[in-house]
Amino acid sequence: MPQQSPLDVPEGDPFGPHNLPYGVFSTPQDARRRIGVRIGGHVIDAGAVAEALGSPYAGVLGAPSLNALLAAGRTTWHDVRRALTAWVTDPGHRAAVEPHLHALDEVTLHLPYEVADYVDFYASEHHATNVGRIFRPDGDALTPNWKHLPIGYHGRSGTIVVSGTDVVRPSGQRKAPTDPAPVFGPSIKLDIEAEVGFLVGTPSELGEPVALADFREHVFGLFLLNDWSARDIQAWEYVPLGPFLGKSFATSVSAWVTPLEALDAARVAPPARDFPLLPYLDDSAEGVEDGGFDLHITVSINGQEVARPPFASMYWTAAQQLAHMTVNGASLRTGDVYGSGTVSGPEAGQRGSLLELTWNGRDAIELAEGKRTFLEDGDEVTLTAWAPGPEGTRVGLGEVTGRIAARSR
Amino acid sequence: MPQQSPLDVPEGDPFGPHNLPYGVFSTPQDARRRIGVRIGGHVIDAGAVAEALGSPYAGVLGAPSLNALLAAGRTTWHDVRRALTAWVTDPGHRAAVEPHLHALDEVTLHLPYEVADYVDFYASEHHATNVGRIFRPDGDALTPNWKHLPIGYHGRSGTIVVSGTDVVRPSGQRKAPTDPAPVFGPSIKLDIEAEVGFLVGTPSELGEPVALADFREHVFGLFLLNDWSARDIQAWEYVPLGPFLGKSFATSVSAWVTPLEALDAARVAPPARDFPLLPYLDDSAEGVEDGGFDLHITVSINGQEVARPPFASMYWTAAQQLAHMTVNGASLRTGDVYGSGTVSGPEAGQRGSLLELTWNGRDAIELAEGKRTFLEDGDEVTLTAWAPGPEGTRVGLGEVTGRIAARSR
Repeated sequence: MPQQSPLDVPEGDPFGPHNLPYGVFSTPQDARRRIGVRIGGHVIDAGAVAEALGSPYAGVLGAPSLNALLAAGRTTWHDVRRALTAWVTDPGHRAAVEPHLHALDEVTLHLPYEVADYVDFYASEHHATNVGRIFRPDGDALTPNWKHLPIGYHGRSGTIVVSGTDVVRPSGQRKAPTDPAPVFGPSIKLDIEAEVGFLVGTPSELGEPVALADFREHVFGLFLLNDWSARDIQAWEYVPLGPFLGKSFATSVSAWVTPLEALDAARVAPPARDFPLLPYLDDSAEGVEDGGFDLHITVSINGQEVARPPFASMYWTAAQQLAHMTVNGASLRTGDVYGSGTVSGPEAGQRGSLLELTWNGRDAIELAEGKRTFLEDGDEVTLTAWAPGPEGTRVGLGEVTGRIAARSR
Repeated sequence: MPQQSPLDVPEGDPFGPHNLPYGVFSTPQDARRRIGVRIGGHVIDAGAVAEALGSPYAGVLGAPSLNALLAAGRTTWHDVRRALTAWVTDPGHRAAVEPHLHALDEVTLHLPYEVADYVDFYASEHHATNVGRIFRPDGDALTPNWKHLPIGYHGRSGTIVVSGTDVVRPSGQRKAPTDPAPVFGPSIKLDIEAEVGFLVGTPSELGEPVALADFREHVFGLFLLNDWSARDIQAWEYVPLGPFLGKSFATSVSAWVTPLEALDAARVAPPARDFPLLPYLDDSAEGVEDGGFDLHITVSINGQEVARPPFASMYWTAAQQLAHMTVNGASLRTGDVYGSGTVSGPEAGQRGSLLELTWNGRDAIELAEGKRTFLEDGDEVTLTAWAPGPEGTRVGLGEVTGRIAARSR
């Protein structure tokens, strides 16, 4: 029997009606940016459907970015998702929805939200331990604060780019221990960091911390994020004030944001904690749901898989990061993004950066095109992921991809 | 003879027609935010005057923030300033201007621009040396990279507040070397950092560095900035990824932005450089104007002067910071703000932080209310500054002030 409608996605499709991630798209025929919801291999023009159906959400869904929806708050997020679910599953809605479907390969996807602040964390114990061993072989792998707070720092919001955007190889200063003075040139240690990003919807007041248990009141959803890193630039600049130009040239994010509600079946307990946590970070307390997400990430270079980082292994959770980020009274804004930090598991094949996979260039990995320590011009890196969904389904996360371009001048 | 018009500011007024800083204000009678230009003790409703005169700048001056003017670029900045100068000096314009004057003490001043990214530098050799001696008494005061690049890091844009906003004392983790584990509570080492902020108008393309000589194409003006810092929180969190919660709770900026053109007489050569600079930072090259600004800053606590940091002593200039910030291809956006870093001169009375003035609390300073090491609840900190203007005048910078409030819960 032929498929009756693009809404009849095959059973087992990770972008079935249990998923429904949000993006922003335009088409060759209509350059207006508008909110799209992904179903199988198609995108629903959500604002157009809402308009056609006289939905009360025509306003937030008719906007050119997700920010109005993000700002509307948790109750609206839930209600909009319920409406979308009805649109794609209730045969009575088909006639209204089908005229507003676009094949995924015929649309252009855009950065779906206006980024406010961007914070990047460092929450994988395996990653932080590997980095510590590589850069401080004679010291303790983890700094003394690492298990007491989720270490983070602010990144550059203005260079967050949507999946598919080329990444121009950055130039900068580097200095090998044997160099008498720093030299300038294109980075020779261009790397990736496989991460998960979290998107803040509901803002908070300046001076008012956000409690661990209020994570779902503020965070709308998550997405894959590649925090491109120039290790040579970073190594020379980062003492004492942290990474700056080694990270600020580009951060790629998926075009699709998966709402937290689609990931209820993926919630898992974080690893056992080695030290007692201060109350504002203590997620063993009553009323705090499991903070981990069982996301299975795959890192590919030029189509060839190089690692499978398991997000469930992260020591610090996104809820702890949110509580920490605001405990000093810092306010949240709609569109704030924060990254989990590089996801690395305990096994060698689970590392989310080339720094770790090649042990800072010592052990090259083999690709079909030849060996790699760090990225070469023309290399394309893709992150994909899935998570367990309801009733044995899988929830697909939107991919994030980027190709390395040489500087034009 | 009585003063004829508020436009007849007394000779020697640092906010005379040679200055004309920009802000955004509202009045009790009219809550709309609109662009104001300061002349003496008055604010000109610039959009209303432009409208009344049929000026071509009624659009950019009629906006609720400076961002449209910032985005309009250098030629427009120059032409608008020329128009404003005519409005306040040409008697033929008085009848059109005077109805749109408001006494400064009858308006509410707002954050005058929407902040995009915020970067903070660390550009005073005296400050960095003092900090190094305090925190690393057995090591070199300056890190090896310090004289090769202007060290900087990203801060939190969303907690930039306008002068006059109370600053809630942040809580967080701290750990004295003798503590077995970190403790949580309100910061006990709340400090200031007297800085100068720079405001980006013209954006740049991702992947395209901005040359040192193009500083004036991109930067619209400058203002005083107080980068509040919780030293105890910062000391425990900042290794290895830099300051985070110790800084992100509030950054206060002046309500007035002084255009670069008002500071032409204040340009000075920076200090002699101790190491040759890489070409992208070399401001001894042909065609690069003097990068320093001879700004004389005063720091007061509760009305009592505690320091006079001289901005002319900064090792790295704002033009070098801009070139460095973009050399990796990072793009600029309209509304990007960057801070100079704490301004400290070579003398003890020229230090721009309590960390330095009290040598991390060892040597209390005397105020009328008693001794201070760090800030107490209720303390009010004010930064003011002036610079040489044309023909022996002084250009006043708008003050930045903030009072410390205890956490309400």
